[in-house]
Order: sequence, then structure tokens, then C-alpha cells
Amino acid sequence: MSELKGYNVAVVGATGAVGQKMLETLEKKDFPIGQLLLLSSSRSAGTKINFKGETYTVQEAKPESFEGVQIALFSAGGSVSKALAHEAVSRGAVVVDNTSAFRMDPDVPLVVPEVNEIDIEKHNGIIANPNCSTIQMVAALKPIQDAHGLNRVMVSTYQAVSGAGAEAVEELTDLSQAFLNGEDLDPELLPVKGEKKHYPIAFNAIPQIDVFQENGYTFEEMKMINETKKILHDTELSVAATCVRLPFFTSHAESVYIEVDDTNVTVQDLQRLIEEAPGVVLEDDPANQVYPTPLSAVGKSDVFVGRIRKDPDHPNGFHLWVVSDNLLKGAAWNSVQIAESLIKNNWL
Amino acid sequence: MSELKGYNVAVVGATGAVGQKMLETLEKKDFPIGQLLLLSSSRSAGTKINFKGETYTVQEAKPESFEGVQIALFSAGGSVSKALAHEAVSRGAVVVDNTSAFRMDPDVPLVVPEVNEIDIEKHNGIIANPNCSTIQMVAALKPIQDAHGLNRVMVSTYQAVSGAGAEAVEELTDLSQAFLNGEDLDPELLPVKGEKKHYPIAFNAIPQIDVFQENGYTFEEMKMINETKKILHDTELSVAATCVRLPFFTSHAESVYIEVDDTNVTVQDLQRLIEEAPGVVLEDDPANQVYPTPLSAVGKSDVFVGRIRKDPDHPNGFHLWVVSDNLLKGAAWNSVQIAESLIKNNWL
Repeated sequence: MSELKGYNVAVVGATGAVGQKMLETLEKKDFPIGQLLLLSSSRSAGTKINFKGETYTVQEAKPESFEGVQIALFSAGGSVSKALAHEAVSRGAVVVDNTSAFRMDPDVPLVVPEVNEIDIEKHNGIIANPNCSTIQMVAALKPIQDAHGLNRVMVSTYQAVSGAGAEAVEELTDLSQAFLNGEDLDPELLPVKGEKKHYPIAFNAIPQIDVFQENGYTFEEMKMINETKKILHDTELSVAATCVRLPFFTSHAESVYIEVDDTNVTVQDLQRLIEEAPGVVLEDDPANQVYPTPLSAVGKSDVFVGRIRKDPDHPNGFHLWVVSDNLLKGAAWNSVQIAESLIKNNWL
Repeated sequence: MSELKGYNVAVVGATGAVGQKMLETLEKKDFPIGQLLLLSSSRSAGTKINFKGETYTVQEAKPESFEGVQIALFSAGGSVSKALAHEAVSRGAVVVDNTSAFRMDPDVPLVVPEVNEIDIEKHNGIIANPNCSTIQMVAALKPIQDAHGLNRVMVSTYQAVSGAGAEAVEELTDLSQAFLNGEDLDPELLPVKGEKKHYPIAFNAIPQIDVFQENGYTFEEMKMINETKKILHDTELSVAATCVRLPFFTSHAESVYIEVDDTNVTVQDLQRLIEEAPGVVLEDDPANQVYPTPLSAVGKSDVFVGRIRKDPDHPNGFHLWVVSDNLLKGAAWNSVQIAESLIKNNWL
């Protein structure tokens, strides 16, 4: 009976912001779970978590924890994935990793199921879940790439603090209240935990997400640039990105500019493609002020697209405004989709 | 003595958010004022305002109010400017208009003094102050255009609520506190006063500033596109814009992407140009997390530029992050600069 009931699943980083959403998503989507194992750092071990009416105790993640595990969903930071993902694989698990540890590894598929599900088949035990801001963008761009070709992508992001974890959510809450009270702001976390300088996120915008690279780009920007090319299977695609942290809690928004290969493409063509694409919802009616916002996307699995416009100064240029819940499609839901695909296609 | 003391100045819209900043700026810059006349709608007439230790009573703006006025700074909305600017001119005043009423009129110079001061000389009584988000962008782009040529500009904005007036500031304050208290949000003003739909700005992003045009762009976006070409004297310049309202009070930020004409331009070249340009301050040191933010620019007259990067995928492409106080350089200070230029150059 337990065989029929489902698969042995481990969630690594079960107490984190994304881990919590993974559990909610597994429950909501009624994922076929045999045994569920909740793992974390030693610091969070012992935490009690409720799942489908049963109470689970979070255990410290160790190599031997993965004995008997079939699917391991990792979301506990890159260092944990680097230390334990191969240990899990060597014990027979397939790892869906939500960190940046393996994303650009040529042996690791980087997958958004609506875009490149077929890449999952070639896995060697690890499938990487892309960066949140990349996922929602490529989900919107894929149908356009397929229909009209794509040679250029330029994105400026409007990213929620929950992408920096539960502590960042707390910092936005606390600093916002302090600001409204007329008190001094004393930021300690954002833009990046452990960095030398911190800037207040309350009623502000911080043009730094993750650490700076030698070339002046942040790691978040380089993730968007490199991951987009890998997922869309086009190393020649020109991608430019600026990533900005903003004072809202959930859902990333993106101002995306694209140039398609075909000429004579219309706004209506793109609207129809978005409307028909899986996992993507068109919310685009300027005359009635219909467009997505971060707040309107919270708690939803889909990617929302609006404000599609043609560039009057460039024959093949279009704008899109792309919004999605960064914790769901941007993280937990995309990981669970990959796990569902592993089962459905017998790719475990 | 009164002749030597200064000029007769009228501030139209003296009780508004920008009007207040105009008075602060006139005081701070010690503008040579003979008689000061504070004007407003009949609704705000009677308000008492302090200027340099004297109390002034705001009077209702009427055609005959402008008798004897030499310089009239208008900032009371487009309809007031349309009704009264020509009345002021016919009575001998030179009007500096901070609304969109005359900006694209070919007979009206549209001026950012650091960029195209010389255009002021050709005025026929009215000089238009550009849109706030346009001013800061062209101030940063002008030295680059002069040195290396400019053929493309793409901007995504991060705009403060004070651009929508004092009521919008109040709405952000009230809705933010309501959100933190876990109360329902009941937006009544933003994105646009008088529009059918309103979206909460607290902990959100609204991709609509001003009303939608037939082509799917907002009026704010079309202002940026058209005004940039006019101020930079280049009708062939390709300009693309997406304008977004965000939950902070003051200073607009802009993610600007440009393509220059010259090849082999370096980041250091652009940094040097920005450093030497008037009214523009370079804040760009990624290794030490130095970049401008909206909060860091509040109350300052300059335009701040950081995050200058070369596009690895396009030989002539660069990113810039441009921040300025939307009420000062974006409105009051630019208007006062125009008035100063009128006097200094004997162009009254």
C-alpha cells in the first residue's frame, strides 16, 4: 500500500521561507508522498511542523539522512546543496535544487517546466530550479520565442524582500513602522546579509541584490543573464539586466523589453500567445486599467503579464510587465512541478 | 532701492507640494525678489505662508493678478496654466511653467539649464519645465550625448508618490500603516486621481502613472519619450519608457539603458563625464557598495548617477542608475534655475 501511496520525499530547509511554501504547495497540490522527511541545519532541528494534520519534527540534514529518499527538494542555501546534494544522489535520490549551486553546471538541467521540461530527462541526479526572477521572465518569453524568434531581452526588476528570506521580511516590517513613527532607521540585513554596508529598504529602492561581481554587475543580474540563455537554449541571445530590491513583501515585477526576429508582429499577436501559454495569464487591458501588480499576484501559482506595447521607435521592439509570486512560481511551485514531471514521465 | 532688491515674482500653486518646494528653493538660493505674490485656486486662497520671516496671504489667481509681475512660476496643474499663462505674459510677465500644458508646443522652449539653457533665449513669454522623470535622465545623458553620441535610450522608472501631490503622500502613509496593522486597504487616489480604478500603493508597485493613451502607453511614458527628444534636440533618438509608481515618498530612480554612437567607450569614460558634468554627481563604487538610492537623494538639488556598466552582449550598450529628488531638480529647483538664467542672461 505504501508503494501506491507515493514517494519518499525530503524537504531540505523546511523551516525557511521557501521551505514553508514547498510544504504548503505539496499539500495543496496533493503531491503523492509516501514518507515525508523534513531536514534543516542543526540550528533549526527540533522544530515541529504540521503537514496534512500530522506533526513532523525537523531533523538535522546529514549525508545518511537521505537513505531511502526518492525525491529531495533542497532550499537551504548554496553551501548546504554543495555539501549534501551529491550525498543524496549517491543514496538514490533525485535532487531538485532551489539554490544557485549547480544552475550553470553543464551536467545539470536548469528547468522551468512550461519552457524546457524535456531537459529534465537528461538529469544525472540533480535538476536545478532557476532564480525566481528568471523563472517568471522565461515563462512569459518562451511562447514569443517559439512563435516569432527572440534576439534581445532587457529587464529591470522590481523585487520583493521575501526573496532575501524571512529575516528580510521582518526588517521591512520593522523599518517601515519605525519610518512611520518618525524614528531613525537602523538597517542590519539588506541589501545582502553579511555585507559591510546596509541600506534602509523601508520607503526606498536598493539597486543591489546579492553581491557585486568583478564586472560591476550583481550576482542576481548575472543569474538572470546566464540562466535565461541556458533555459531558452540560446547562447547568442542578448540579455541585459538591472535588479532592484523594493519595499514590498511578495511577488517580483519586471519591466521587460524584447526584440523579436519577425517583422510585422502586433501587440495582439503577443497577447494571444500569452493567453494561450501554459502557466501564464494575460492581464492586459489599459482602457480599463487592467494590469498585474505584486499585491494582485500574491498566493497565485501563475505568471501574470500586462502592459504589452509596441515600441514606436523600433519595428521589432515590445514592452511587457511580468509579475509573479516569487515564493511560488519563483521557487516552491516550480520545484514541485519539476518533481511532478519526474514522476509523470518516469524520469526518476 | 526696490529695483535693486529684485524682481516681482508670482508663485502660482503656492500651497501645493511643488509650490512649497519652490518657495523653499527661492528662499534657500536667495533669489532676488522685489515683491512676492502667492497665488492659488479659490479653494486655497486665504492660506497664510511664511517666507523669509514675513507672512503672506495666498490670493486667488486671476488674469489681473499678474499686473506688475516680472516672473511667474506656475505649478497649479495644466488647466490653470492653460487659463492664465498667456494672461500673465500679456501683462509683461515671463512664465516658467511646471505643468505639461505647453511642453510640446514648438514655440515654447523646454529647458533643463544644464542641458539646453540656450533655448531659453528664444522664449515668447513661456518657458516649460520638463516632467520630473525626464529632467533627471537628460541631465545624466547630456554629457554622454555630447562626448560619444547617443542613438538609443530605454528607461524603466521607480517613481515616488510625491510626484502625484500631497494627497498621494497622505495615501501612502495611511495605507502603509493600515497594511502593517493588518487592516483592509481602501485606495481612493492612486494611480491617478479621478480614474475609475484605484490600486493600493502600500507595499506594492503600480505600472501606471497618469492616464493611458490610445497606443497603450501612459501619458507619463509619452512625456518621457517626447520631451527627451525635444530637450536633447534629436528627433531621431530612439526612446522607450516604462513608468512605475512605487511605495516611497520622495526621489525618482531610473534604470536607464543607452547605446552610444562611438565604439570602444569604457565605463571609466562615462564615469569621468558624469563626474565633470554640472548638476550631476557620480556615486558609483560597486566594490564599496556605493550607489544612490531615493532616500539618499532626498533634499538635494543634484542628480546622482551610479551602477554604470557595460553590456557584455552589446558593444555600445551601457546601464546607468539615475536618482534625484523629484520635487527639487525634478520640479522646483529646475524652475528656479530657469528664472535665474532669465535674469543672469538678460533674457527676461
